[in-house]
Amino acid sequence: MIAVLAGGVGAAKFLRGLISVIDPSSITVIGNTADDEEFLGLHVSPDLDTVVYTLADAVDPEAGWGIANDTYTALEQAAQLGQETWFKLGDKDLATHLLRTKLLRSGNTLSQATQAVADAFGVTCRLLPMSDDRVRTIVTTDDGDISFQEYFVRRRQEDEVKALKFEGAEQAQPAPGVLDAIKRASGVIIAPSNPLVSIGPILAVPGIREALVDTDAKVAAVSPIIGGRALKGPAAGMLESLGHESSAAGVAKLYEDMLDVLVLDEEDRVLAPDVEALGITPIVTNTIMRDAARRRALAEATLESIS
Amino acid sequence: MIAVLAGGVGAAKFLRGLISVIDPSSITVIGNTADDEEFLGLHVSPDLDTVVYTLADAVDPEAGWGIANDTYTALEQAAQLGQETWFKLGDKDLATHLLRTKLLRSGNTLSQATQAVADAFGVTCRLLPMSDDRVRTIVTTDDGDISFQEYFVRRRQEDEVKALKFEGAEQAQPAPGVLDAIKRASGVIIAPSNPLVSIGPILAVPGIREALVDTDAKVAAVSPIIGGRALKGPAAGMLESLGHESSAAGVAKLYEDMLDVLVLDEEDRVLAPDVEALGITPIVTNTIMRDAARRRALAEATLESIS
Repeated sequence: MIAVLAGGVGAAKFLRGLISVIDPSSITVIGNTADDEEFLGLHVSPDLDTVVYTLADAVDPEAGWGIANDTYTALEQAAQLGQETWFKLGDKDLATHLLRTKLLRSGNTLSQATQAVADAFGVTCRLLPMSDDRVRTIVTTDDGDISFQEYFVRRRQEDEVKALKFEGAEQAQPAPGVLDAIKRASGVIIAPSNPLVSIGPILAVPGIREALVDTDAKVAAVSPIIGGRALKGPAAGMLESLGHESSAAGVAKLYEDMLDVLVLDEEDRVLAPDVEALGITPIVTNTIMRDAARRRALAEATLESIS
Repeated sequence: MIAVLAGGVGAAKFLRGLISVIDPSSITVIGNTADDEEFLGLHVSPDLDTVVYTLADAVDPEAGWGIANDTYTALEQAAQLGQETWFKLGDKDLATHLLRTKLLRSGNTLSQATQAVADAFGVTCRLLPMSDDRVRTIVTTDDGDISFQEYFVRRRQEDEVKALKFEGAEQAQPAPGVLDAIKRASGVIIAPSNPLVSIGPILAVPGIREALVDTDAKVAAVSPIIGGRALKGPAAGMLESLGHESSAAGVAKLYEDMLDVLVLDEEDRVLAPDVEALGITPIVTNTIMRDAARRRALAEATLESIS
């Protein structure tokens, strides 16, 4: 059994490689839900959906999120009715949020709704939200505090991030099965996701970080930073503005208390000694998942490092 | 000020004629909400929406309901995810239900949500649900009790109707403004809608029938039955199976206690004496609203009868 901590696009790609190597039903994905937001009155879980759509091979291959060949008829009409529509929900995508919201409104937990969505897409990995409780990433900018999606989508990550808060995290409990999945895992992988706003909120739920520190299983992270930059998203600038090092070594430091292995890119081979100096085993390989073969090779190298 | 009791398609067509004759802002529409239903977790108000779409000239002209040139991408995807999709919600149509549901879930009343939807479509008639409380038409068939939409849409009105119940009606209150609109109206019109399942539930909300009986203003109904048949929908068979007369005279009897005028079709001229015998003034005219001129002429004749 393997447990994977996952954000959105990068994690989803990594998981797609992983299920080509090991039985999906042996994988428990613990997903970030601090990016969840309500749009058009529907509960949207962007990171969980990106994982589901990718694993179901339904994802828009260009964007890396959303459903392939989706249309925006409902959204355009909502705009005509005066609704805010900066978050791009496609028509097919809406069916997911309608299902989730219906289940939540009728008394199901987010775990149950997530399971139903995964089942509906035929995803056989076990997919758990980090918590059934409401946790929301709040980004402090020069213009004040804004929600993560406001920062990420509406304002296109153009604000300098002054601080991050995970509202509700202190009171949140790990979703049922999360701690158990970590405790029983033969290995844990932290996917190549933004360490601050994708993995950070998961680790902020009381008990999860502790479980990762305590487990006897090896914990490996795949660095989402290559040559000082993120392939996608604002991780690099955010690391810097929050006083961290925007490098694979900087990522290793953030996970230092729990990490056994850091998988880093060939381009960052020079950083391997810095990682090793933290007591973390560096595994240098090609981490850019540009095709199925590369995704598979990265998954194999990562699995081998924790076996 | 004119008050109009309205069901769906027939009423909407009639109202479209009416607003071509008098200022829409002088019209208060009191709509049937006993056909409301939850689909895909959204609150759908089919009769109110048909009125709004028609008055906004957005309605699908073939069907008489729904939005013109709509697509069904979200619904088809919902079917793929295992959801029940026998109620045909188009993508554009979804935007309406998303808006209404969002407003209801955030604490607004159905009146407030209805006003917001009407405003969003630029409808300047005052549109009121009969009640903010939940009233649901239950149809008794040989297979037991089913919801109105189950009878009407899913089972295509093929069941014999053994009985009708308006669940919740006894405890319901008229929506704010409904009784006042009737009391202050210079004339009241009962639109050409099914008297049992479109107008019936409105009259079943305590206080509304009494207000129509008590008002000094003239009350006119336009018969939805022409030559013993309904132009659309199951009214004729339903009238018969429930022991009423499927004719304009039968409609007059159902409204006898409150009606001053019945507008009936040329085809039913022979029934005028029967209507007159009930103490109701028959107005014989062409009631088939096949084009704008006919809609307008019917509205003018009806208005004249109550002026």
